[in-house]
Amino acid sequence: GMGAVPVRAQAEPLPSWNDGDAKKAITDFVERVTHEGIANYVKPAERIAVFDNDGTLWAEQPAYFQLAFALDRVKAMAPQHPEWKTKQPFKAVLEGDQRALAAAGEKGLLQIVAATHAGMTTEAFAKTVADWLATARHPRFNRPYDQLVYQPMLEVLAWLRANGFKTFIVSGGGVEFMRVFAERTYGIPPEQVVGSSGVVKFQIGKDGKPSLTKEAKVEFIDDGPGKPVGINRFIGRRPIFAFGNSDGDQQMLQYTAAGEGARFMGLVHHTDAEREFAYDRKSHVGKLDKALDEAIARKWTVVDMKKDWRTVFPAPK
Amino acid sequence: GMGAVPVRAQAEPLPSWNDGDAKKAITDFVERVTHEGIANYVKPAERIAVFDNDGTLWAEQPAYFQLAFALDRVKAMAPQHPEWKTKQPFKAVLEGDQRALAAAGEKGLLQIVAATHAGMTTEAFAKTVADWLATARHPRFNRPYDQLVYQPMLEVLAWLRANGFKTFIVSGGGVEFMRVFAERTYGIPPEQVVGSSGVVKFQIGKDGKPSLTKEAKVEFIDDGPGKPVGINRFIGRRPIFAFGNSDGDQQMLQYTAAGEGARFMGLVHHTDAEREFAYDRKSHVGKLDKALDEAIARKWTVVDMKKDWRTVFPAPK
Ligand SMILES: [Ca+2]
Ligand SMILES: [Ca+2]
Repeated sequence: GMGAVPVRAQAEPLPSWNDGDAKKAITDFVERVTHEGIANYVKPAERIAVFDNDGTLWAEQPAYFQLAFALDRVKAMAPQHPEWKTKQPFKAVLEGDQRALAAAGEKGLLQIVAATHAGMTTEAFAKTVADWLATARHPRFNRPYDQLVYQPMLEVLAWLRANGFKTFIVSGGGVEFMRVFAERTYGIPPEQVVGSSGVVKFQIGKDGKPSLTKEAKVEFIDDGPGKPVGINRFIGRRPIFAFGNSDGDQQMLQYTAAGEGARFMGLVHHTDAEREFAYDRKSHVGKLDKALDEAIARKWTVVDMKKDWRTVFPAPK
Repeated sequence: GMGAVPVRAQAEPLPSWNDGDAKKAITDFVERVTHEGIANYVKPAERIAVFDNDGTLWAEQPAYFQLAFALDRVKAMAPQHPEWKTKQPFKAVLEGDQRALAAAGEKGLLQIVAATHAGMTTEAFAKTVADWLATARHPRFNRPYDQLVYQPMLEVLAWLRANGFKTFIVSGGGVEFMRVFAERTYGIPPEQVVGSSGVVKFQIGKDGKPSLTKEAKVEFIDDGPGKPVGINRFIGRRPIFAFGNSDGDQQMLQYTAAGEGARFMGLVHHTDAEREFAYDRKSHVGKLDKALDEAIARKWTVVDMKKDWRTVFPAPK
């Protein structure tokens, strides 16, 4: 028979969502899979929900926040690297020369990542991220980056967990970067953060102490087709619920959709230039084009930020 | 002040362990870290416990069980591969020629792994493992391999979880192999299994369906120094409790030991030829030599299987 409605589900869920198709799709899905005895029931161990991070759980404009971190690190490290004054792409960063930085392309970006994300222990890196989050401010909103998370999505995360889901981040961002704030910001512990990674090496120091050192070599890019691969590698179970915001999430959504039983596939569509940003098919950051076409064709949920979200960011602390 | 002793801890833990130093070390450690207000208290989110699998949670003699699986697969697949009758290392497997198989060395082993663990979807592979576990029998005990798990270690896993720990496997075995039985056998869900892996590729088939295909290329070896690297990659938090049985666990134990606060490092020493097997410093499988020296020198817990375990395997089902 039909299971009793759990007490927690009786409180009005998702208060920062306006009533509409998107909210209804989310709440209906959770109802469908959490009642024992109903055809779509999914046991708790299999209630795997995955979320992209940049543009899905927190903002990503005018540039990925991790890139802002890397550029700030170049500036902070510059006194120890006098050669950067004349060496690209570092010169461009130090001079704020956007054109030269863009001209350095992906190769330049990898050099910046190598200089700022490698050559230190995992603990030392985590500390630079924590220090940066405590001091850096977003250029438009003048708030710490980890306060520019989406209140409606925090409510989705919490509500899924209250209904027995296990929530994971599956993001192209660096796993060691995200783990610094994911637990306190999203309630997602380090072991439930899947992301891109560099090679890490185990060493025993001269003092006999073991350490893990980050090396300047990309190991895994958790984006596009890498997302289902990362899900398989880290989670080992196909999600029943997936949320993204760009073409980099398309394969993750396809993989989620291809499982049996009830499925939820969602995209955050950035339509709100006033409260946040408006961008999609032609954006350099968070391009949403093919995935939007597929979402429309397959009736996946497309969140219209302007229309569906009562609030965007949490109130300042 | 001292927190109340939780009700669950009042039941006699670890009934399959004889009273002695090993049992006391485990129970004392759990007591020390689970009482709020005491110096060694560790909050639940940080109670990470890691376990090697082969030789620590289940047996590994006379050969790793995953190797037995691979050899059985070669035999099962032979009708579709007539060329194997004359091609090493397959010829050796089909003829049961141990000497020729040994002579094929690591290269031969990789060929066998490639032939039996790749060229299929992750789901198809999982099915071959499940089918094998349901039908294959251990040569000495004539029991399904997944019944040759250590009852005392099942009790440690369950007791840690009852005390708020999150239990992980961190094994040199294949992650896709272990995930088939880890949840039902150990209560460890797929997302808490860390292991060696091959490259997996995302593809959209002609029917429009996405799939993940296992390729014949090693991606990660979760053994020796790879274990702390795997822990960092998959868990992202240093364990406070680690159990292994061989030199392949030494770095995992060192990494665990190097954290601050209370730590537990344990080794299963196979001393019981009558009920299981006796081997250590000179064994080809599960060699325990340097890690044993370090364990003795640093007073890590060394379990003497013969002396410390009241029972070895669970009663046949
Ligand atoms: Ca994104
Ligand atoms: Ca082992």
